[in-house]
Amino acid sequence: MTGVDGAVQLRVAMAQVDTRVGDLDGNAALVVEWAGRAAGDGAHLVVFPEMTLTGYPAEDLVLRESFAAASEHALTDLAGALAERGLGEVAVVVGYLAHTEGPAAIDTPPSDEETLDDERPGDANPRRIQPRNAAALLHGGRVVARYAKRHLPNYGVFDEARYFVPGTELPVVRLHGADVALTICEDLWVEGGPCGVVGQAGVDLVVSPNASPYERAKDDLRLPLVRRRAAEARAPVVYCNLVGGQDELVFDGDSLVVSADGELLARAPQFVEHLLCVDLTLDRGRAPERREGRIGPMTVTRTVVSEEPVPAFEPRPGQVAEPLTDCEEVWRALVLGLRDFIDKNGFPSVVFGLSGGIDSALVAALAVDALGADRVHAVALPSRWSSEHSLADAEDSARRLGLHFSTVPIAPMVDAFESAVDLSGTAAENLQARIRGTLLMGLSNQHGHLLLTTGNKSEVAVGYSTLYGDAAGGFAPIKDVPKTLVWELARWRNAHARDRGETEPVPQNSIDKPPSAELAPGQKDSDSLPSYEELDAVVADYVDRDLGMAQLLERGHDPEVVARVLRLVDVAEFKRRQSAPGTKISLKAFGRDRRLPITNRWRESLPSVREGAAQS
Amino acid sequence: MTGVDGAVQLRVAMAQVDTRVGDLDGNAALVVEWAGRAAGDGAHLVVFPEMTLTGYPAEDLVLRESFAAASEHALTDLAGALAERGLGEVAVVVGYLAHTEGPAAIDTPPSDEETLDDERPGDANPRRIQPRNAAALLHGGRVVARYAKRHLPNYGVFDEARYFVPGTELPVVRLHGADVALTICEDLWVEGGPCGVVGQAGVDLVVSPNASPYERAKDDLRLPLVRRRAAEARAPVVYCNLVGGQDELVFDGDSLVVSADGELLARAPQFVEHLLCVDLTLDRGRAPERREGRIGPMTVTRTVVSEEPVPAFEPRPGQVAEPLTDCEEVWRALVLGLRDFIDKNGFPSVVFGLSGGIDSALVAALAVDALGADRVHAVALPSRWSSEHSLADAEDSARRLGLHFSTVPIAPMVDAFESAVDLSGTAAENLQARIRGTLLMGLSNQHGHLLLTTGNKSEVAVGYSTLYGDAAGGFAPIKDVPKTLVWELARWRNAHARDRGETEPVPQNSIDKPPSAELAPGQKDSDSLPSYEELDAVVADYVDRDLGMAQLLERGHDPEVVARVLRLVDVAEFKRRQSAPGTKISLKAFGRDRRLPITNRWRESLPSVREGAAQS
Repeated sequence: MTGVDGAVQLRVAMAQVDTRVGDLDGNAALVVEWAGRAAGDGAHLVVFPEMTLTGYPAEDLVLRESFAAASEHALTDLAGALAERGLGEVAVVVGYLAHTEGPAAIDTPPSDEETLDDERPGDANPRRIQPRNAAALLHGGRVVARYAKRHLPNYGVFDEARYFVPGTELPVVRLHGADVALTICEDLWVEGGPCGVVGQAGVDLVVSPNASPYERAKDDLRLPLVRRRAAEARAPVVYCNLVGGQDELVFDGDSLVVSADGELLARAPQFVEHLLCVDLTLDRGRAPERREGRIGPMTVTRTVVSEEPVPAFEPRPGQVAEPLTDCEEVWRALVLGLRDFIDKNGFPSVVFGLSGGIDSALVAALAVDALGADRVHAVALPSRWSSEHSLADAEDSARRLGLHFSTVPIAPMVDAFESAVDLSGTAAENLQARIRGTLLMGLSNQHGHLLLTTGNKSEVAVGYSTLYGDAAGGFAPIKDVPKTLVWELARWRNAHARDRGETEPVPQNSIDKPPSAELAPGQKDSDSLPSYEELDAVVADYVDRDLGMAQLLERGHDPEVVARVLRLVDVAEFKRRQSAPGTKISLKAFGRDRRLPITNRWRESLPSVREGAAQS
Repeated sequence: MTGVDGAVQLRVAMAQVDTRVGDLDGNAALVVEWAGRAAGDGAHLVVFPEMTLTGYPAEDLVLRESFAAASEHALTDLAGALAERGLGEVAVVVGYLAHTEGPAAIDTPPSDEETLDDERPGDANPRRIQPRNAAALLHGGRVVARYAKRHLPNYGVFDEARYFVPGTELPVVRLHGADVALTICEDLWVEGGPCGVVGQAGVDLVVSPNASPYERAKDDLRLPLVRRRAAEARAPVVYCNLVGGQDELVFDGDSLVVSADGELLARAPQFVEHLLCVDLTLDRGRAPERREGRIGPMTVTRTVVSEEPVPAFEPRPGQVAEPLTDCEEVWRALVLGLRDFIDKNGFPSVVFGLSGGIDSALVAALAVDALGADRVHAVALPSRWSSEHSLADAEDSARRLGLHFSTVPIAPMVDAFESAVDLSGTAAENLQARIRGTLLMGLSNQHGHLLLTTGNKSEVAVGYSTLYGDAAGGFAPIKDVPKTLVWELARWRNAHARDRGETEPVPQNSIDKPPSAELAPGQKDSDSLPSYEELDAVVADYVDRDLGMAQLLERGHDPEVVARVLRLVDVAEFKRRQSAPGTKISLKAFGRDRRLPITNRWRESLPSVREGAAQS
């Protein structure tokens, strides 16, 4: 096959949609709807996010044969449905779960030439099926091409080596005279990966469905990354990312298009569903001579859908969304993560304890932004140790937000327990928190609210909370927000409201007063913990960056603070293993992207001491 | 290098020890102690389990640079310590965590010849260090040879692709004239893996440190597997397995030795630390001509420790432990998993609610077997709905076992809550369970007991429990035991006591009476659930075997039962994600070897219904 000269035009749409894990029918309907919108806008090619039909990440559902087979069926059904709706002439790239035992499987990779061992020494998985993280190009009612992801991320929150076998074929589809190559997500993160093959094969455009989770400050990485791959591929790259919350992950969208020269042609806003269209003029003479067959470790195949270029049209300028500030970005991630968790799990409403402190005041503001005030129920649960300002601040918070608010004093229940069993010290403090948890769960069960737990990352890290007490809840909106960032977000949210002439949602007193659990007379967090500035700095280095004791001291942390914090973090694993999911925004949230044994004698703080763990 | 003729003898010991994750010093001390015992028994070579020095699995500790460096230091220190104790002449094979940035790193694999892509397309892990699951042969105060595991299991409970890079070198050490090859665990599970290389390289003995978790009926797999590898390697295989509990896993030991002809020469008992010695006569003429250098995908290296055979000695017959019955095997797995969780985490004692029902009666018997009666505290927490026999049966159970027993009626607390909030139906039922949970956690915090939760696998599967109520606890001894097996184990344990003339630990009435949560008047489990025989059969097929709806019906399950059970299992994910760890004995325990999204619309039972999740 030889190169074709001259320029061709394409209008390419990125459908940055919010899919639902496991909802094959719903996700297929979403594709039909958004493909229709793109066609209405004159698009020739529409790209959807990674694993569109199954949602991402589908985790162990991937290994269930019935689910994999249903995904294959959903794909062929979708090709038919698009054509029936008159959308057959638009090329649609959707992600799905491929399954070699299924009805329309992609090829298995060529068998290895080695007589001993296999190509992937790490893989002795006895799975019955051979699932692939795949994308297909649909056109004219048919599945025209299928691509299986080659590079499978298996670190942090990713477990793809558990689920998928890697692809070895690289399909290139000629569409209106332009050669379009398919890749998926992590393939773009690898130098000399599929984009290197593309650069030798000769294509005019690379499309990439993605499911790239939000991480604070990560967006600075995507643009330079896509630029490097566009240069390697010698072609523009269309990067369509998922948007929406899925358990601990929130996907931020931020879809973008970069020219072969690295120019940013279009960029979608974050945290919203969005159809981003871009008009591309592809110079067919720019790419090298077209090749197919084996290139490096992959086999390039070519398929022709249409040779005829589209009639010339006047290109519209691409839209480039303004970047968000750090605080607004985090805020919108937390709001979207919370909203999708509640809505996708079918809960009508949420409930939580509103103490007058900063954490619950911030969760209240987040919940109202996510769900509207009418779906939010807050309860003040004062005890004999609650200060006067606590109830007043809780009432102030409720009034500012207009949410449902009630008060249940806990003294009668505390008395009943204390008459039955003799509890003192921490046991007595925890009792109060557990009575609150029991009351809130009672309301949750009675009315169908999901209980939110209001703990922040600093607390979760050091275990400064009560198991089955304030740690109780089905979702933890700020579990990945350190306390210092809690204050920063509260100030930002209030300033944001002021800028728009709205009521500030967080009482200033909740921001200003010294934090206290109020489980004992005159108690302050600072009695038990170092300052939150010190604590958060050590947690960031020890938890997020995985530094050991020697490195922490090298970085200038106070040795006494380091010893205290590390000891607390090391022994708090019991609580964290039983805690609610919450939106991840940092390098390492507690949960599935940080896995430590409970039973574990390694202590950075006290390597030679045999200390017991605590369950409180 | 040419083959050497004639037979040489070796006495090989397998030190089947119970290591602790993270306890580098403690595990090194264990090696010195057991190597000394083996030397005292005349052993020339002692083999320890996989990752001896770090414990297994060390999970994300593996990625911490300070830990990996400490493991390397611990290895070289251990070699010195053995020599200092006069054990330098015994060859000792220990597992450890290797680290290429460390002070004594093994070689990195040869760089790939492909110009594009890398050898392992699945691995784009941006980790800073290159950890390896390694084993070393120590002799004469030095590290003589290092092997890095080639096949990294990444399914079920295993995540080794997350942690390790695979090895490419196969070291063979000549010891007293015999050529000994090192492999590790999963390497034995792969046909054409390192044992295939060994079969071409020519060795006299293969040693394999393992960390192979117990699974019900799995021991039937190990012997035929080791036989196949011995045939492929054309040499005897020495298989030393870990013993002990680690969070959800329990390793059962069951170390064994198979001759090149497949004869079982020795086998250690399960669930106990054990030194298994075997006298081998190795026919050096049997193996093929000795080769080194590249064979298949690996590079064989050879090192000589000693050419001189040991003086001829009279071989002792190998010890072959009697296999356990199914019930005894499960019982001992549960006892060891519980004991090691409590002891390794430094808890002095346990507490739990003793209801008179079969689940808590069985947990009481397990706890006393694991810890002794004096470390076990049980509390009866009768409510207005508790039947008379409940307290009598609980008292009977406590008397039979001799554990600490007390009674706290919950009516006053129930009244206090019901005066404060209006709860009915399930919310009122759950309230009683949460008051019990709060009382038990109060006792746990006051006295330092670990709270055990007594739920069985059938309950956990369908969510038939109260979150923060009876589901509260730091360890769940029978969470992987289906209800029908709970009864079977109770009968077995009583019969076992009868056989030995001891008191039967489980009251017959607890076994015989129909199960009830007793949270409402006259309530029976059978009001809410199908029979446990039906439930357990569907759970085994749906959860353990991952079958879909169509396959379940094909297998003859009742369609109405299947629909009910699948719906319950699908919506119970909230509770399971917040549940305590417990010893895994089945193909799939809820926990880390089964990972499903909480937010998930895939319903085998009702694929088109948008049902809400429940948090109760």
